[in-house]
Amino acid sequence: MAQIPEPAKGRLLYLMRVLEKMGTKQVTSHQIEALTGWSSVTVRKDVSYLDGDYGGTTQGYDPALLIRAIKKTLDLETHRRFCVVGLGRLGSAYLNLQAFHFGEFELVAGFDISVNRVEILKSPVPLYPAYKMAEIIRRFSIEIALLCVPDGAAQETAKKLAAAGIRGILNFAPVVLTLDGEIAVRNVYVVDELRALSINLPPVLEL
Amino acid sequence: MAQIPEPAKGRLLYLMRVLEKMGTKQVTSHQIEALTGWSSVTVRKDVSYLDGDYGGTTQGYDPALLIRAIKKTLDLETHRRFCVVGLGRLGSAYLNLQAFHFGEFELVAGFDISVNRVEILKSPVPLYPAYKMAEIIRRFSIEIALLCVPDGAAQETAKKLAAAGIRGILNFAPVVLTLDGEIAVRNVYVVDELRALSINLPPVLEL
Repeated sequence: MAQIPEPAKGRLLYLMRVLEKMGTKQVTSHQIEALTGWSSVTVRKDVSYLDGDYGGTTQGYDPALLIRAIKKTLDLETHRRFCVVGLGRLGSAYLNLQAFHFGEFELVAGFDISVNRVEILKSPVPLYPAYKMAEIIRRFSIEIALLCVPDGAAQETAKKLAAAGIRGILNFAPVVLTLDGEIAVRNVYVVDELRALSINLPPVLEL
Repeated sequence: MAQIPEPAKGRLLYLMRVLEKMGTKQVTSHQIEALTGWSSVTVRKDVSYLDGDYGGTTQGYDPALLIRAIKKTLDLETHRRFCVVGLGRLGSAYLNLQAFHFGEFELVAGFDISVNRVEILKSPVPLYPAYKMAEIIRRFSIEIALLCVPDGAAQETAKKLAAAGIRGILNFAPVVLTLDGEIAVRNVYVVDELRALSINLPPVLEL
């Protein structure tokens, strides 16, 4: 997998999402081009990185086989446990996301600094006060944390997560985390997403 | 701006976020390398795309000038209005995000299909029933929508937004939107972000 370029990995992940939503029996690289905007040459090149049988014939690809090959090649078949840290509005919204209660990622715990909030919040998974974070992360082999704490607490909390053995952090705060050791961080701050969207807005048409 | 490669645009946006959080008076491409992991050669190349004076000297860059040059080059100086569509848990969390009530993006309205929800939800901005969407979007020149409706309603709602003249959609649903006409879409589905994080987790160390 190491030799797949980052942009190709990103496209393969998105392609998997597209295929999951299609539900057809065959798909051609030209149909994928129409759905995604990537050229069929790019699509075929990306698909060529995949291990194993991805159902390519002259008729096109079999979406189910292609999804399986993407999952296998990108090592997405491993079931992974994660937790939500910080149970404010965003954190509690994610606690209740349906998709987290089946499928490849399993939500197993929520944490908040406020013992009171942990006690009164309704949640489909157990909630714990923040001081129990390291204990619970180790006990349940939690690999990933959704970091939803207030901006000012993000760096300090991330350090504690790293010390507790978390392997990856999805960071929702507008904070550049500085962590020792091997830990993957992905930043998903909504204002940054708005910026990225806004630099790609279409030209204004005169009405 | 059209000639800046997409990955460089992405790095410049992130660099802007890094610089905003630094607060120092000078920063060198080597310091940026340490903070971001991009090579100093990449950093200098990215910065070379910027218009105007970005404060580059032998001592490094002036962060304030560099931020201004990035904003100018990427056309982020335009004040843009946006709305939240779908006021479930995620949508109402975003209604209340502090960063949306000052700064370059201005939240001006929220919409929900449920008239009841629109009436009882507490909100810092006016809320409207969904049938008023086109009218309000035009009246207040709203350019961008955060699409937070249930998955099954995403495509239909996006079509209505497009017809109402929205220019960009930040799509939080795991749905591949198909829209006629020129409209920018950026997908930010949390499970996809988890997938992207999980393919970059560090190798497991034996303890």
